[in-house]
Amino acid sequence: MARAWHLMSRPDGLPNNENFALKDHDLPGVGDGQMRVRNLFLSVDPYMRGRMNESKSYIPPFQIDAPMDGGAVGEVVESNADGFEKGDLVTHMAGWRDEAVIDTKGVYKLPKVDAEPQAFLSHLGMPGATAYFGLLDAAEAKEGDIVFVSAAAGAVGSVVVQIAKAKGMTVIGSARGAKKCGYVRSLGADATVDYTAGPIIKGLRDAAPEGIDVYFDNVGGDHLDAAFSRARLHARFALCGMIAGYNSREPMQFRYIIRMIAMRIVMRGFLYGDYVSRLDEFYRDMGEWVASGKVKPQDTMFEGLDKAPDAFLGLFTGANTGKMLVRV
Amino acid sequence: MARAWHLMSRPDGLPNNENFALKDHDLPGVGDGQMRVRNLFLSVDPYMRGRMNESKSYIPPFQIDAPMDGGAVGEVVESNADGFEKGDLVTHMAGWRDEAVIDTKGVYKLPKVDAEPQAFLSHLGMPGATAYFGLLDAAEAKEGDIVFVSAAAGAVGSVVVQIAKAKGMTVIGSARGAKKCGYVRSLGADATVDYTAGPIIKGLRDAAPEGIDVYFDNVGGDHLDAAFSRARLHARFALCGMIAGYNSREPMQFRYIIRMIAMRIVMRGFLYGDYVSRLDEFYRDMGEWVASGKVKPQDTMFEGLDKAPDAFLGLFTGANTGKMLVRV
Repeated sequence: MARAWHLMSRPDGLPNNENFALKDHDLPGVGDGQMRVRNLFLSVDPYMRGRMNESKSYIPPFQIDAPMDGGAVGEVVESNADGFEKGDLVTHMAGWRDEAVIDTKGVYKLPKVDAEPQAFLSHLGMPGATAYFGLLDAAEAKEGDIVFVSAAAGAVGSVVVQIAKAKGMTVIGSARGAKKCGYVRSLGADATVDYTAGPIIKGLRDAAPEGIDVYFDNVGGDHLDAAFSRARLHARFALCGMIAGYNSREPMQFRYIIRMIAMRIVMRGFLYGDYVSRLDEFYRDMGEWVASGKVKPQDTMFEGLDKAPDAFLGLFTGANTGKMLVRV
Repeated sequence: MARAWHLMSRPDGLPNNENFALKDHDLPGVGDGQMRVRNLFLSVDPYMRGRMNESKSYIPPFQIDAPMDGGAVGEVVESNADGFEKGDLVTHMAGWRDEAVIDTKGVYKLPKVDAEPQAFLSHLGMPGATAYFGLLDAAEAKEGDIVFVSAAAGAVGSVVVQIAKAKGMTVIGSARGAKKCGYVRSLGADATVDYTAGPIIKGLRDAAPEGIDVYFDNVGGDHLDAAFSRARLHARFALCGMIAGYNSREPMQFRYIIRMIAMRIVMRGFLYGDYVSRLDEFYRDMGEWVASGKVKPQDTMFEGLDKAPDAFLGLFTGANTGKMLVRV
């Protein structure tokens, strides 16, 4: 009997365990063009919070009392699909469960990069590619830039820090608490801002006395306002996420957004999905950085399918350093 | 005896007449490379509010108890400067006064475009070029786009409406009250939003049921938030001004800024000054549109130098339709 997590009710504000239920499923047979996969690792990501709302966004909302989905790495245990064989390791979107019968759409064999399978949900997967294209394309960051990245101990932010250093930039990262700030500095960051220690705007002023050229936003809210306040001429802001707003109905407040005009800031929202046709660039560079030790793996692993909601909820309380994962 | 308006104190919030004083000046002699100009028309513009604060921005603040400056059209009455002769009409930055002795820096003879002199402070001057480059370059607006422009009855907005129509776009303009909305429609706007009639976000939803591709922002605040709420995929926002914030110490509040990510909005601050090297493009196109009647002049004229502060203050109460000017 396979098991899958269902969304049982739409959260109002911060989700809790009551919103989820783990349910048994009889798997169907493996039809033509299908395969059965047994999941090894599941990804939980902040963007999933948006799918728990009813409103339409760039991906459809989760349906009530149906299995949720999300990134996963699994092993093919039975295949009637061309190009996939028993024993293949694949990334796919039938996460939040232990086993599934799936079509080939969105299923990829792990690229030939020397790394553990879970890396392809982390720095060699969606979060890593988000960091890579967000920093180098959406924010047009280049050697010599002063880069500020929020949630710098997180799955995306920690890779942004390392790519920026590999490319010769100065990097300031924000994180929650002294320990995570220490981790961010261990990745090469030149300075950190502990946003639990005082107003982020003051912390960033101290950490970036000369201002910033690039802001990679994972947080929104007061982090984004602080970035407005420190932006230099022609600064570029890439908006990747705004976790500060995911569980809130309150508007975000900005005192310094007007500096976008005087400083001619360019601010751009982007999604990983816009770049899937360019993943070869990402694997090429990232493979090299991983091999040379310039990008180091880091994850926080929850053990067991039954812990998946806890892992997800932990994203909003800062329980993870690096990528948050579930080992099935 | 020449006369000039001085800033006597820095306004806290909305300025008032007490912040200004009209003072007599003995003009110096006209030195080598200098000229004396008698002003015919003065420009008052929202951006001047920023110069009344102490803080540094892209232009220095006005000094206390010194003549203010700003755009003006004047006649040369005495010249020791190469290339300028008695009788020449020029645009220059020694506004807020009736007569001045100036160097040649920032002084231009009126371009050879058939128009009244005050047009070069209006649709053929800084506001017109701001509209032109903001819409076509900063916002990358193109034929077929649905364009929303705030303060569409103002100096810049009214030109944005007309250029957008000349270029085959659909245009929605916001303005204060039914009369100004009627004026905006008379310029060719397809729909208008009277922001005194209810929440702008609701007004824009009704006026742009299919959403918007471009937002030209002169206002900020709830107008900008409404634009976030209606933006379509790959919308472009050009930030020209945020008059809603010029007299306020309160932060601006945004409920929909997070849509920048899902819709991959690009938002760009810009200044007229970035485009002065490309003014020939502007004069070429605008000269043609004026000649063909596609762009029509509109100004609100205050009579007499002593009325300059009233004209300026009127910018914040919506006293102008089209460009606000002072006839000296």
